[in-house]
Amino acid sequence: MNVVSPLSNVRVVLVETSHPGNLGAVARAMKVMGLSDLALVKPRCEIDDEARARASGAVDVLEASRRFDSLDEALADTVLAAACTSRRRDLPHPAYTPRQAAPEMLALAHNGSVAVVFGSETFGLSNEQLMKCRWLINIPSNPDYASLNLGAAAQVLAYELRCTAEDAVLPLPEFEPAAHAARESLLAEMEKALTEIGFHDPANPKRLMPRLRRFFAKAGLEKEEVAIWRGIVEAMKTTGPSRKN
Amino acid sequence: MNVVSPLSNVRVVLVETSHPGNLGAVARAMKVMGLSDLALVKPRCEIDDEARARASGAVDVLEASRRFDSLDEALADTVLAAACTSRRRDLPHPAYTPRQAAPEMLALAHNGSVAVVFGSETFGLSNEQLMKCRWLINIPSNPDYASLNLGAAAQVLAYELRCTAEDAVLPLPEFEPAAHAARESLLAEMEKALTEIGFHDPANPKRLMPRLRRFFAKAGLEKEEVAIWRGIVEAMKTTGPSRKN
Repeated sequence: MNVVSPLSNVRVVLVETSHPGNLGAVARAMKVMGLSDLALVKPRCEIDDEARARASGAVDVLEASRRFDSLDEALADTVLAAACTSRRRDLPHPAYTPRQAAPEMLALAHNGSVAVVFGSETFGLSNEQLMKCRWLINIPSNPDYASLNLGAAAQVLAYELRCTAEDAVLPLPEFEPAAHAARESLLAEMEKALTEIGFHDPANPKRLMPRLRRFFAKAGLEKEEVAIWRGIVEAMKTTGPSRKN
Repeated sequence: MNVVSPLSNVRVVLVETSHPGNLGAVARAMKVMGLSDLALVKPRCEIDDEARARASGAVDVLEASRRFDSLDEALADTVLAAACTSRRRDLPHPAYTPRQAAPEMLALAHNGSVAVVFGSETFGLSNEQLMKCRWLINIPSNPDYASLNLGAAAQVLAYELRCTAEDAVLPLPEFEPAAHAARESLLAEMEKALTEIGFHDPANPKRLMPRLRRFFAKAGLEKEEVAIWRGIVEAMKTTGPSRKN
């Protein structure tokens, strides 16, 4: 690989990591596969000597990591976020293996940052955090013991991305994917509008917003589509209050 | 996977490992992928508390490991041995990536034990040790920093073997796709509603409906989603005419 590799647009996002050794292990796992963008969301530990020891020759990745106060902030400029989780059956989001996910992730990485999100060692990711991601990624594992170490999971993902990057990947048709923050604010506006027109009752939400989130996750929102949906939502809201007349 | 999996015939052979933490990490990497046969050749460390802590729920694999005084003894009953190494150019042996190697390794695992051999953290495997193996395995990595941690390398190999064993492709989540006619009638209703609320002008349609069609095509509409969107469209229409008041 020469010139700019899409791997340089892959961000690893660690949420509420507890063990400094895992920070180091993830940094090393990233660097050996050619990744370098590490984001830490509310880490519960510091980059200490243990972290640096486990990072070995990847201390630079560790030191260059950025901290964020929320997952939304860490994902704000990304065009795709995929949450690595062992949960699946209870969630409606599209779920893929690393091998299935890697080609489209890399194709999108030509257009902007793509993120792989990992939860804390003990609690994983909350439902709310999972639903903020477009995809779930399930690493195939032993059903009797599926507990991958955080560094090992990051290694598997980074390895798949590198293997795929080294293969020829067909670029997707030209389009501009929407950033995370644009999608989140659109969905928030949409929820407001649906409430105003009386279709959605936040006090009795049923499964409406998760279902709409899932629909938008499947579609893969583009910039131009954000503009269209914003227009529709605005038009809905304009009409909303008069309904009570 | 049921009955006897070829994964149970995969042996991981660690030669002269120095760090107990790595023994634990390898045991965990094995168990999460369904491997259990761990062989230690002249280990330079003990299975201590650190090893057990890193093994986490895979202490059983660690405790069941066997010690050997030589690589020959650890490989004696195997039908294939593959050495994981970052070296290649100076050796005449056949070399494969994990992905290339996995199918034949598993095929042979139906006939007897197959081994993946890892050298020590500092020195790797000697030429003599490498030449005792039939294959070399090179994990694709960053040419500028190819130093995989021992546990991470074992994780990648075990993962590839499991993926190959499962031919792992996630089934899509269960859902009921909407029929063509249902999608068409929804889109027609949507166009009407968007016209009523003044967002869409059929006399000057621009690219709105083709863009919405494309968005719905990407998402892959399901039956339940038709019901949700029909509800939204109904709610829009109800409010629509009053806008002109």
